[in-house]
Amino acid sequence: GGSMQIDGDRLLADLRELAGFGRCGTGVHRPFLSREDREARDWLVRKMCEAGLNARIDGIGHVYGECPGTQRALLIGSHTDTVPKGGWLDGALGVVYGLEIARAWIESGEPGPLGIDVISFADEESAYLGMAGSRACCGHLSDAEIDAAAHEGGRSLRDALVEAGYAGRPFARLDPGRHLAFLEAHIEQGPRLESEGRRIGVVTGIVGIRRIRVSFSGQADHAGTTPMHLRRDAGAALVEFCHQLLPRLEETRGPNGVWNMGQVAFDPGVANVVPGSAEVMVEYRDQSVAVLDRMEAEIQAAVEGADGRGGVAASATQPLGLPPTGVSTEIAELIAAAARGRGETPLLMPSGAGHDAMVVG
Amino acid sequence: GGSMQIDGDRLLADLRELAGFGRCGTGVHRPFLSREDREARDWLVRKMCEAGLNARIDGIGHVYGECPGTQRALLIGSHTDTVPKGGWLDGALGVVYGLEIARAWIESGEPGPLGIDVISFADEESAYLGMAGSRACCGHLSDAEIDAAAHEGGRSLRDALVEAGYAGRPFARLDPGRHLAFLEAHIEQGPRLESEGRRIGVVTGIVGIRRIRVSFSGQADHAGTTPMHLRRDAGAALVEFCHQLLPRLEETRGPNGVWNMGQVAFDPGVANVVPGSAEVMVEYRDQSVAVLDRMEAEIQAAVEGADGRGGVAASATQPLGLPPTGVSTEIAELIAAAARGRGETPLLMPSGAGHDAMVVG
Repeated sequence: GGSMQIDGDRLLADLRELAGFGRCGTGVHRPFLSREDREARDWLVRKMCEAGLNARIDGIGHVYGECPGTQRALLIGSHTDTVPKGGWLDGALGVVYGLEIARAWIESGEPGPLGIDVISFADEESAYLGMAGSRACCGHLSDAEIDAAAHEGGRSLRDALVEAGYAGRPFARLDPGRHLAFLEAHIEQGPRLESEGRRIGVVTGIVGIRRIRVSFSGQADHAGTTPMHLRRDAGAALVEFCHQLLPRLEETRGPNGVWNMGQVAFDPGVANVVPGSAEVMVEYRDQSVAVLDRMEAEIQAAVEGADGRGGVAASATQPLGLPPTGVSTEIAELIAAAARGRGETPLLMPSGAGHDAMVVG
Repeated sequence: GGSMQIDGDRLLADLRELAGFGRCGTGVHRPFLSREDREARDWLVRKMCEAGLNARIDGIGHVYGECPGTQRALLIGSHTDTVPKGGWLDGALGVVYGLEIARAWIESGEPGPLGIDVISFADEESAYLGMAGSRACCGHLSDAEIDAAAHEGGRSLRDALVEAGYAGRPFARLDPGRHLAFLEAHIEQGPRLESEGRRIGVVTGIVGIRRIRVSFSGQADHAGTTPMHLRRDAGAALVEFCHQLLPRLEETRGPNGVWNMGQVAFDPGVANVVPGSAEVMVEYRDQSVAVLDRMEAEIQAAVEGADGRGGVAASATQPLGLPPTGVSTEIAELIAAAARGRGETPLLMPSGAGHDAMVVG
């Protein structure tokens, strides 16, 4: 489509209209299958149809708009559900970009052999089941998992789909024979672009995420009556472990790698009892499996070094291990070149979060 | 009472009978003003009366047994309420010691000018209001505090006293004109006696207890998308603070002094968010105000050193400061001499916990 014209004003107007469903302060409250979310899905179907797509809500809640008259298509989208009291651009941006691109493409009158399909995936934000939509779309979600999925309030996903009127419809599926690639635009969710004065980031891959839970087991004792030398203080053991691990992780991580110790618990967790047990979750992300392996080795070595120190046992489990996901170098280069053609200096960077694109990838 | 004879079997039988009220496994569940607690109080009144004391339950729930026919008395006791699912000796031991001593004293037929009064204080274990009984007994509890006291289930102390039938009765009060001293026997609640092969500890004073809450304020960020150099990680700041403080406290504390970091919280406290704020409670105990002051100075210096490091603000508040409580050296020496006279080698040691004796002291 050489004459294809993106209408920025129209795109922004759509984003603002979408933000009206579940508006909450400057943000949006639109959990998957809430009334606001279903109204937003109905709105999106209308907008897609007006753009010329064959649009429908499928059996798990996707809004899927298919470009008519073509055998092959780029699939573009993200999700329109939000976390409770979420932001107005997360997910919505990627969907409305898809809508505007498809609309402009059809308006250009040159659809040719390639179309633009647009999707808003179901439940990216885990109201019932994390990334349920993209997993279902890729055939990675079993009926049993759908049967078991329930809101923390207790309502099952199946019941909610019946109530929404979506149950029983066929599922939209990723079709390798049709879908050449999947594109998901997203706000950065981090400060790098802003801190470096850039406006466009080009994702070079999605980081792998691993978590290691390190547990310390000592002995809970009265903190007034137990002499220091007779204690087995799991909390002090955790502090020393974390202190020793911090510089090791800094040395081992790649230039774009990150780690976090965001979750710590002491048990019983009161001022006047020596902690009998303690836990810390170490999360680390990198694009390279080799770097992830080196970080994991450092953590395991630190656990082994801590085990038994001060009469406290240390052990580790790995509750999460998501491998890195590659992206198409060819498409990344095209996006970067297009940005440069508009006078931008794009920043090539990994995506530190997963998104539906990770599942599709 | 030269011919006074303690009956050890009778004392143990009373302890075991008392443990039958609210028996719970090998322990006891007898929260203040529960049915079991009130039945235990009625039992204690009967036992005191049988021993020859003028016994009654007073307006706040004390069981107080007064030795008849004397103007001056030693007051002996502790408490019979327990924490939920507590031990069978905590509190009970001190009360039944008092009962047996008063009984043996009266049986010796030589009451003379000095009697033994016995008390089981109300609500030592804070079902409604911590050490409410001993504080009321010493005139350190205002009507307003009693009015405001309520169980965590919502029931007010006033209502519970009405329901128990105690409301409206006069309060037993510590009477400096009558009570020469207060004695409270207690199991150690720590491992020192056992680890040193001793059977008798003589309390040389009750430690002062201070708590300092140290708060760290950084910035909560997505742990996948925020580069390490742009973070203000309150959790990492807490770890470094604790690591630096540990050896300082070890150097500063007295030979019997102790410290504890038993309570730690990260906020929001999830694996994939950089902690925006974090808190640790530092508790420390010593018999010496000078030592407590030195430990406090170390903590404050560590807070000042931490403040601003890594973009994280550190500050401290002191939610608790209980001064050390002295005991009668004369009585402590008499107890030690009596123990030695029975072939024991008593350990002179501070009490690392407070008990009603701290309030009375």
